[in-house]
Amino acid sequence: MRRNESLLDLFLELQTLDRVPRTGYVLRGVSEPESVTEHSWHVLFLVWALGARIDGLDVAHAVELALVHDLAELRIGDLPRTVARYFPDGAKQAAEAAALAEILHPLPATAPALYEEYRTGATPEARLVKACDKLQLMIKVAVYEGWGSRGLAEFWGNPDNFPDGSFAPVRELFEELRRRRAAAVPAPEAGESV
Amino acid sequence: MRRNESLLDLFLELQTLDRVPRTGYVLRGVSEPESVTEHSWHVLFLVWALGARIDGLDVAHAVELALVHDLAELRIGDLPRTVARYFPDGAKQAAEAAALAEILHPLPATAPALYEEYRTGATPEARLVKACDKLQLMIKVAVYEGWGSRGLAEFWGNPDNFPDGSFAPVRELFEELRRRRAAAVPAPEAGESV
Amino acid sequence: MRRNESLLDLFLELQTLDRVPRTGYVLRGVSEPESVTEHSWHVLFLVWALGARIDGLDVAHAVELALVHDLAELRIGDLPRTVARYFPDGAKQAAEAAALAEILHPLPATAPALYEEYRTGATPEARLVKACDKLQLMIKVAVYEGWGSRGLAEFWGNPDNFPDGSFAPVRELFEELRRRRAAAVPAPEAGESV
Amino acid sequence: MRRNESLLDLFLELQTLDRVPRTGYVLRGVSEPESVTEHSWHVLFLVWALGARIDGLDVAHAVELALVHDLAELRIGDLPRTVARYFPDGAKQAAEAAALAEILHPLPATAPALYEEYRTGATPEARLVKACDKLQLMIKVAVYEGWGSRGLAEFWGNPDNFPDGSFAPVRELFEELRRRRAAAVPAPEAGESV
Amino acid sequence: MRRNESLLDLFLELQTLDRVPRTGYVLRGVSEPESVTEHSWHVLFLVWALGARIDGLDVAHAVELALVHDLAELRIGDLPRTVARYFPDGAKQAAEAAALAEILHPLPATAPALYEEYRTGATPEARLVKACDKLQLMIKVAVYEGWGSRGLAEFWGNPDNFPDGSFAPVRELFEELRRRRAAAVPAPEAGESV
Amino acid sequence: MRRNESLLDLFLELQTLDRVPRTGYVLRGVSEPESVTEHSWHVLFLVWALGARIDGLDVAHAVELALVHDLAELRIGDLPRTVARYFPDGAKQAAEAAALAEILHPLPATAPALYEEYRTGATPEARLVKACDKLQLMIKVAVYEGWGSRGLAEFWGNPDNFPDGSFAPVRELFEELRRRRAAAVPAPEAGESV
Repeated sequence: MRRNESLLDLFLELQTLDRVPRTGYVLRGVSEPESVTEHSWHVLFLVWALGARIDGLDVAHAVELALVHDLAELRIGDLPRTVARYFPDGAKQAAEAAALAEILHPLPATAPALYEEYRTGATPEARLVKACDKLQLMIKVAVYEGWGSRGLAEFWGNPDNFPDGSFAPVRELFEELRRRRAAAVPAPEAGESV
Repeated sequence: MRRNESLLDLFLELQTLDRVPRTGYVLRGVSEPESVTEHSWHVLFLVWALGARIDGLDVAHAVELALVHDLAELRIGDLPRTVARYFPDGAKQAAEAAALAEILHPLPATAPALYEEYRTGATPEARLVKACDKLQLMIKVAVYEGWGSRGLAEFWGNPDNFPDGSFAPVRELFEELRRRRAAAVPAPEAGESV
Repeated sequence: MRRNESLLDLFLELQTLDRVPRTGYVLRGVSEPESVTEHSWHVLFLVWALGARIDGLDVAHAVELALVHDLAELRIGDLPRTVARYFPDGAKQAAEAAALAEILHPLPATAPALYEEYRTGATPEARLVKACDKLQLMIKVAVYEGWGSRGLAEFWGNPDNFPDGSFAPVRELFEELRRRRAAAVPAPEAGESV
Repeated sequence: MRRNESLLDLFLELQTLDRVPRTGYVLRGVSEPESVTEHSWHVLFLVWALGARIDGLDVAHAVELALVHDLAELRIGDLPRTVARYFPDGAKQAAEAAALAEILHPLPATAPALYEEYRTGATPEARLVKACDKLQLMIKVAVYEGWGSRGLAEFWGNPDNFPDGSFAPVRELFEELRRRRAAAVPAPEAGESV
Repeated sequence: MRRNESLLDLFLELQTLDRVPRTGYVLRGVSEPESVTEHSWHVLFLVWALGARIDGLDVAHAVELALVHDLAELRIGDLPRTVARYFPDGAKQAAEAAALAEILHPLPATAPALYEEYRTGATPEARLVKACDKLQLMIKVAVYEGWGSRGLAEFWGNPDNFPDGSFAPVRELFEELRRRRAAAVPAPEAGESV
Repeated sequence: MRRNESLLDLFLELQTLDRVPRTGYVLRGVSEPESVTEHSWHVLFLVWALGARIDGLDVAHAVELALVHDLAELRIGDLPRTVARYFPDGAKQAAEAAALAEILHPLPATAPALYEEYRTGATPEARLVKACDKLQLMIKVAVYEGWGSRGLAEFWGNPDNFPDGSFAPVRELFEELRRRRAAAVPAPEAGESV
């Protein structure tokens, strides 16, 4: 796969994003886990619904950032988090930027710039998308636990998974989620796997 | 399930949209078919990418319409098209509106209005979302055929599945898709199933 | 899809019932859930095995009712229970009757009458099929919980899911099932999901 | 697993039949293939619908035979046909009878007798169930081919898979199925796999 | 399927081993269970890693035994353990030997001899493969329990599933596994299914 | 995930390799594609069966190389081939070596050396494993095409996928495979996807 030369090539390739499962769930035994496409939709919905509650935030712009934030996974896959240990600093981000430029080539030049803005967290909109990316992760983890998954407890023990608390609506939702989960799961946050 | 009373209830319920498969594919033997969430994301991306090429269109508004256009399927399911033969006129639309109002209750009152605008096709933005809804269907059908599905030929024979041609970028993409498919599939549009 | 005009059309269409999953399980995160075909077979077996223990019941006739009781789902889907909130009274039943008449058209006129008898619960045989429809639901819920599903507790809290107790063999089985489940599941009937 | 001692044990065990896929499809790469439960339901429906067209046949009795005909697969699995080459004559049948007696123990003594009648083909009803067992196989093969499976051509080349033609309604349906398939599949009955 | 006459036939047939799921997991509701191929790889890895810690053991030879030990399942299926109750003594083993001879025909005559050595447990290498076959079973059971399966408790209650303790590295690993599982699972070894 | 400190940690982690699907198939719409574990087993079997036909080759050593050759995918994933375009030269190989060292830490120091030997192709045994890695790919592609996949034609058009022809038994098998496929598939090597 090279640079997409037509819009149709781009749209056809995007359909395969549905077949890229979120690796963190796969490796912890979740059946029929969320695809990257599904994750992206939920992040986008969160950004839209919560962005409206944040003063001065450009919601339409944040939605655009959310639309492109995970597309590089089409060509790089949804890398497990451990990958960061094994690649040189910045290699993954550089690869994502390069892949994205080839994928989105038929779109106007603003598309890669959106990714860059997201990656660097340069604006409040970018930071909101990042926060919603994590909030969605923890919401889904809670849903899978409610359905019977027992291999996800470690997510609650690692603050790297928690959304940055600088946006009040995000912070409040996450706190409510943690409270509910603590009430629902017998031994919250204990590692219960072998 | 009743009216969602908190944002968290809404976000938790939305996660289950990933488990609602698109019925048209299921009944034609497509394995691991697209979920409603995945369909929604692809429609949204099309609206965003193509809307920018249409003079005078409010892309951010069209994106919002796309975000809510299929959410009622959370509680009603993705009804097979044949359902229209068996329910009284308008019953499905009324049910969708009622379900949507309960699902989206924690959001501002504009959300059901977005759905109403979409349903009635009252604006160019609503009509673009409807056109992209069908364009995405036919793109996905082509992808599934390219992967080996043989039960989808009838989609190409029924103009009800085709996007309304009043937006040039949509029309041109769909024509290019039909040309490519005709070149790729030996006996295009022939019914080849038993 | 229209009226089936030949027996072969009917038998071919029926095969797709295997791809219609039971929506109640799908939306609660059960993996690889029962299809409508599977549900139908189990109801039928219950009717046959339990009907023989009920004085004066015409088992062969009850078996026929069980055979047709869910076929409309071929064209309408397995609607989530919430649908009842959103459609006018009786709309779903009328739609099912209309769909069934078209599906079963190649069979003698008795087939739709069987569905009508089932739907109205006009005979002891129809009431037994309805009771076994619910008994099978609760047996399957118990099996899925035994396999690890944690999202099904609400079924045990809603008496609408329980089989009507007027047939002693059904009632006794259901009571035994509840006792076993209460002994097996730590906090029976508590809502444990987030 | 031993002898089922209660009806509830029996009904609980039967639910697992949904997880036993039909091996012939699995080994030829059919995705999400029919379960034994689904096969059983379809055979039963064929017996009921076609039995009514055969003079003098006891349909209710034939339906009972169909209900029990595959239950031994709960404990023995759906053995691939090649197994017959490797076990002594009659070993599989004896094993099925022994398994069935233990599975169905809570039912009256007639249940194993039904299986014996089926196995030996001692009555027209038993022969009709056997014929429908094969007719259903070939109908499903045609459906899977219509959906895209290319690994099933050999089924059409082996008359052992064809239903015995002594019942006119079965014979006519099968001939119609073959005609349609020959018209639909470019190179019928040619082995097209590597 | 008959005797493989060429190496390519053999290699093509072997690919289908990926579609044969391990029946013990299927019947206990594990989603997406291990295939026979996967089981074989893990046994092989255990044999290689542990064999090196056993004085005087011929690791390369043990690895060869592990490579062929489950291949008969290609044609016989992964029979549920209950099968032993229903077939005459030795029938399964004789069938496996016959199937294996036909599958492996293109290989030198040593291949069936490897299976025979494994089956009879005639050498320390064969006994190590048998021990690792069971150790892998219990490791996988623990992994599935850690992911949420609740239907596997009975495995821990039946010493037939435990690896023979005559090899110290196997025994020590299994004891460590049991200790960890007892610490992780609230009520170890209690039957918690309905 | 860090350095495995005990053999049990290693064996538990290895079980998750079954959930890592081979990305090349996933992105081309193959349903239930081969896992990395399954791929590894088949490569290993090829190495064992073909190595015995190559003069002077140390088969036991080649088998060991095959055992470790893909384990880094546990922590890095099965990266799509396009990744090579986006990462700096050698970054993927360095990451694999680092991941492997942490995964295999409880094993003797020879394990990472085996991977290094494989990676660099320093010995005939390493080159045979590499050749079998590709031969297995093309065998599986042919099997999936035989089952109905239509999205894999491009594999036959890219010689990078073909096994190096310096080992006669590998070369001959691959040539036989190509001949059979050309005879089986109507328009061999033509790109038939949209």
